[in-house]
Amino acid sequence: MSNVELEGLRARLDEINGQLLELISERAQVVQEIGAVKEKQGVPKFDPEREKQMLEKLVASNKGPFTSGTIRTLFKQIFSASLDLQSTDHKKSLLVARKNHAEDTVIVLPGGVTVGGLSSLMVAGPCSVESELQTRTVAAALQKAGVKVMRGGAFKPRTSPYDFQGLGMDGLRILREAATAYGLLTISEIVDPRHIEEALDYVDVIQVGARNMHNFELLKAVGEVNKPVLLKRGLSATLDEFVHAAEYIMSRGNMEIMLIERGIRTYEKSTRNTLDISAVPILKQECHLPVLVDVTHSTGRKDILIPCAKAALAAGADGIMVEVHPDPATALSDAAQQLNIEEFNTFFNEVKASGLYR
Amino acid sequence: MSNVELEGLRARLDEINGQLLELISERAQVVQEIGAVKEKQGVPKFDPEREKQMLEKLVASNKGPFTSGTIRTLFKQIFSASLDLQSTDHKKSLLVARKNHAEDTVIVLPGGVTVGGLSSLMVAGPCSVESELQTRTVAAALQKAGVKVMRGGAFKPRTSPYDFQGLGMDGLRILREAATAYGLLTISEIVDPRHIEEALDYVDVIQVGARNMHNFELLKAVGEVNKPVLLKRGLSATLDEFVHAAEYIMSRGNMEIMLIERGIRTYEKSTRNTLDISAVPILKQECHLPVLVDVTHSTGRKDILIPCAKAALAAGADGIMVEVHPDPATALSDAAQQLNIEEFNTFFNEVKASGLYR
Amino acid sequence: MSNVELEGLRARLDEINGQLLELISERAQVVQEIGAVKEKQGVPKFDPEREKQMLEKLVASNKGPFTSGTIRTLFKQIFSASLDLQSTDHKKSLLVARKNHAEDTVIVLPGGVTVGGLSSLMVAGPCSVESELQTRTVAAALQKAGVKVMRGGAFKPRTSPYDFQGLGMDGLRILREAATAYGLLTISEIVDPRHIEEALDYVDVIQVGARNMHNFELLKAVGEVNKPVLLKRGLSATLDEFVHAAEYIMSRGNMEIMLIERGIRTYEKSTRNTLDISAVPILKQECHLPVLVDVTHSTGRKDILIPCAKAALAAGADGIMVEVHPDPATALSDAAQQLNIEEFNTFFNEVKASGLYR
Amino acid sequence: MSNVELEGLRARLDEINGQLLELISERAQVVQEIGAVKEKQGVPKFDPEREKQMLEKLVASNKGPFTSGTIRTLFKQIFSASLDLQSTDHKKSLLVARKNHAEDTVIVLPGGVTVGGLSSLMVAGPCSVESELQTRTVAAALQKAGVKVMRGGAFKPRTSPYDFQGLGMDGLRILREAATAYGLLTISEIVDPRHIEEALDYVDVIQVGARNMHNFELLKAVGEVNKPVLLKRGLSATLDEFVHAAEYIMSRGNMEIMLIERGIRTYEKSTRNTLDISAVPILKQECHLPVLVDVTHSTGRKDILIPCAKAALAAGADGIMVEVHPDPATALSDAAQQLNIEEFNTFFNEVKASGLYR
Repeated sequence: MSNVELEGLRARLDEINGQLLELISERAQVVQEIGAVKEKQGVPKFDPEREKQMLEKLVASNKGPFTSGTIRTLFKQIFSASLDLQSTDHKKSLLVARKNHAEDTVIVLPGGVTVGGLSSLMVAGPCSVESELQTRTVAAALQKAGVKVMRGGAFKPRTSPYDFQGLGMDGLRILREAATAYGLLTISEIVDPRHIEEALDYVDVIQVGARNMHNFELLKAVGEVNKPVLLKRGLSATLDEFVHAAEYIMSRGNMEIMLIERGIRTYEKSTRNTLDISAVPILKQECHLPVLVDVTHSTGRKDILIPCAKAALAAGADGIMVEVHPDPATALSDAAQQLNIEEFNTFFNEVKASGLYR
Repeated sequence: MSNVELEGLRARLDEINGQLLELISERAQVVQEIGAVKEKQGVPKFDPEREKQMLEKLVASNKGPFTSGTIRTLFKQIFSASLDLQSTDHKKSLLVARKNHAEDTVIVLPGGVTVGGLSSLMVAGPCSVESELQTRTVAAALQKAGVKVMRGGAFKPRTSPYDFQGLGMDGLRILREAATAYGLLTISEIVDPRHIEEALDYVDVIQVGARNMHNFELLKAVGEVNKPVLLKRGLSATLDEFVHAAEYIMSRGNMEIMLIERGIRTYEKSTRNTLDISAVPILKQECHLPVLVDVTHSTGRKDILIPCAKAALAAGADGIMVEVHPDPATALSDAAQQLNIEEFNTFFNEVKASGLYR
Repeated sequence: MSNVELEGLRARLDEINGQLLELISERAQVVQEIGAVKEKQGVPKFDPEREKQMLEKLVASNKGPFTSGTIRTLFKQIFSASLDLQSTDHKKSLLVARKNHAEDTVIVLPGGVTVGGLSSLMVAGPCSVESELQTRTVAAALQKAGVKVMRGGAFKPRTSPYDFQGLGMDGLRILREAATAYGLLTISEIVDPRHIEEALDYVDVIQVGARNMHNFELLKAVGEVNKPVLLKRGLSATLDEFVHAAEYIMSRGNMEIMLIERGIRTYEKSTRNTLDISAVPILKQECHLPVLVDVTHSTGRKDILIPCAKAALAAGADGIMVEVHPDPATALSDAAQQLNIEEFNTFFNEVKASGLYR
Repeated sequence: MSNVELEGLRARLDEINGQLLELISERAQVVQEIGAVKEKQGVPKFDPEREKQMLEKLVASNKGPFTSGTIRTLFKQIFSASLDLQSTDHKKSLLVARKNHAEDTVIVLPGGVTVGGLSSLMVAGPCSVESELQTRTVAAALQKAGVKVMRGGAFKPRTSPYDFQGLGMDGLRILREAATAYGLLTISEIVDPRHIEEALDYVDVIQVGARNMHNFELLKAVGEVNKPVLLKRGLSATLDEFVHAAEYIMSRGNMEIMLIERGIRTYEKSTRNTLDISAVPILKQECHLPVLVDVTHSTGRKDILIPCAKAALAAGADGIMVEVHPDPATALSDAAQQLNIEEFNTFFNEVKASGLYR
């Protein structure tokens, strides 16, 4: 008998489940409509005051058997699912989002060098451009090793105003000349919107550095030029903030953006930063942009660059950035963590030998 | 016009909310009835197979806008709330929560010393009990300064197995004797459930250290004795985890628990840990327990103990813990951060002079 | 016996220390002489090639116990200290440092309002300037409450390019007019060096926001105007980086800088950021500048602003910043965390009643 | 003429460099001797008071041209290099250190399954053992997939005392029976030293969980049995703390330890924890123990397990741990992040197809 009873109760449960599903789905639609109205009005979608009122009303009408606490929890869950739905809508609408653009963006640099396609990219070069000799020495070595793109800092954002700040436009000129002499392309950081125009003659890719990822005026400015941008993740930027920083650039019209993970700030002190390897698959999944990993700044340790570069490629990175200096011990910046040329050759050979570098 | 639209949509939302509440409540009643039937049959109430079937059915009928994943999550929440309702043990809100017990818990230690009431508590003493002389020297100084409770480590959880691990039971004995000689109460850390019984003779308050905040077997064990417990926040425990750790103790019957914030791990290196000052008002708000702040471990810097202690009291802390050693430079642990006796006197006088120490 | 041994070893250590000091000093003199010769020859003083040779030589002669790496590091340190000695510009200690300037800097704003002296400063106002009505409503309430300085954002750095970005120059104008009407001073954030000149007419204090703390071009630009600057700590800036960011400003000539702690990024989720209370005494100790605390952004929770503001003042802060909006639920930014006017009055009254607000 | 002068000065510089090298090296030897004496005395090596005295003495004798600040900096550098030398000595002496034992430790489990050698290890299974059916279903699937070692929690350390705490010894029995039936080995977490003896019959590898990495009494206890241990990194343990936790085990005699990285707590919210991939090469370099990566707890996201597992292997990990449940949606713990059997098969096949799983 009790089994009959049980079956009856279960049937009622199924019925209620079905009704709940319908109501929850309809509720979500209503919330979406409200969201659309608010969007037109330019008003934020999340209205904590209103949510509070709804919860109070529900608690006031609650006759049990759930406690007020459980009712609050269940409905907050339902409310926030509806809200997430809107933010999913919002994410779908980002220009950088894969939902908006299913295929990988492939950036074609001068000379047909591609970023983000089937082949991996190695970007190498000194932290700072210091002299013609230093830059040319690296350029020659990179050409010999088969590297196509050279990095080199001319405008250096440094913690102290009294540290070496880079050679500025002279540095860009030195970089360009060395690169041209050895058939390389150039990447260099720009820190001021007022420098962009002049810099366009010298760089093939504009880098926006980690300290400037939240410098929205700079992001907008590089969004308005016709030159690929390499955007570094901020020192402690969330992936969501990183993606939105790229959106600042793309919303101004520049579609050629590469993202680069460079380690985040954590409590761990055995590395300079913590390489957030899961950022690679998440960014590849959420965005259609090429994703690189700067192994030098992520780790700050020469002795683990090879396994970290392999890990980055295995995780799906489209390329690697690494610092190389003819004589790291005398470098004007990042002395401890730059590879010398011999070390770089070993590094690149081992990375290629792994089969992960395509 | 769109405001009219908005009002209409909101009215519909309120209506749906009400219907959902009714259905969810009815559902809970049905589940309770099923539970009663099962109880009669001696069958376990949780039936994962049945739950799975219900979820599959719901997902199969789902027409959006929620994804199947969201539907699963929302209904699992509803299912488990209903299940919790059946087992009344699981249901009640936390014992440590202020919602459950509005007044502040005041712990009365031997000799009528109170923790958590109108007067502030200063707990001081050496990091480790090292010798009778060292311990008695501190005890004499504390008595003179008007301190009532002395701390001193006998079982020291140390990063390396080769570091000084404390004097163990001998240390507790030395601490007790020095304290008794100078009319003080004792606090000392216990790290192993098997030591508790013997330790009860020596300590007036059992400390559970930061590294053991998630040692649930130890929490249960101290929950079963009749002795106040000082529970330290874990190195990187969230406040939610901290509160639940206290609940482990209280759920075993021991209602006399003091919480102590001791700094959390962050990227900042100018202090040993980061004193999370907002933890104080949040814990006071969420729980009815006394809340202390360990200024020594939070900061690891003698030169800012006075302002940090004042800040803790201004934020609502019921007490302060600080390390004092007759000769910090020769201490066997925490050498750099312990106050000497003169420094402690200055510290305590300045804290009292602020008017924040009641 | 081993103590005798220890004393002998320590005496030898003191002797070596003295000899090292003599040699290092003599070395510095020789480098100065070389510098003088080079200066006459018009040759650059830093000769990386020569430095490299010297390092190689040292490494070649090194017989341990230090590794070659340590020898390189130690001698690079010695070399660069000698080099710094030559360029006297680089040498002097930081302008913002208390070692350089023992007394507290007191900034006198128009109307004689002081920051950093004997009296505390309350800065309040809406997150964003949204309309004349909203701004005037707040201004009237602040005047009535006795507040002297009003904040209000006109250029809003927002995570998404599609979020409300502020009213720009119009917002500054609205802020200025409302402030003037109610006898208040103004603070507002500037995000682009190109806006500074125009903004000078509208703001009494230029704010550099957390996301721009490492925007060195902006720091330099505000360092060149004659207007006090409120510099926010970056989202995850170390105190050392924060102090150097202030130095960027001061090194350009602007001596009127206020520092403001606004919470740092940590794993803890019960607050929006973690208020780093120990930053207050450390900054006061290291710098001669006024230090404020932004309790709104530090915590992101209205319910703990009072204890946190008291804690900030008890820790030595010269002022508090808090967000106030006539109707937080409808605010275009930071809706959840702004106080309404009544809440602000309660807040300010309680903070004053504590006796900590001077 | 001035070139002659220059050459003379440079010769003098080289001479001084040589003398400095000799003195610095001799100084380091003296410090090592002092360290040896202190070690015998059981006194900590770092003596801040003594360091302070030495610095004061040096500053007092300093006649320039360096400022006192520079002298302090240079000598602190020299002092700390000497101190590091001792801690390097100390690290060398850890039993887990590779410096002590150059070859990789290979652990041979029953049936000849090896961990840490030439072949990779896949450990899979449910978060919790819930029932015989559930456990056997997973076991059958794992056998079919070619997995050799099954995990399953019987003692579950849960944040709340009211959450499912595992089936305890019954769970271990169920796990053992299912494993034996399908020719698998077992790994399960032990949380209390008092359970170890009984557990030895059921588990082939004892797991010490993240929350217990600093439970030194448990570490010592598992160090005294003759059974391999899988030690998880603590929620926010530094690598140095992790290595020392392993040393606690090994110092008691148990040489068969596997380390497992499981993500660390950071501010980033898009993953449950942050997989610290650089921990893998650092641990492999510093220790001779096998290193695994728990991709489930590191990420908390099913959608990035494949790239993260590949990254772990590319970085040098000896194995992967992943959670598998016949029906994750109804799981009693970790519902959202366990793979179902089909998903696991895809996962394992893709990881094997990458060529990184040996």
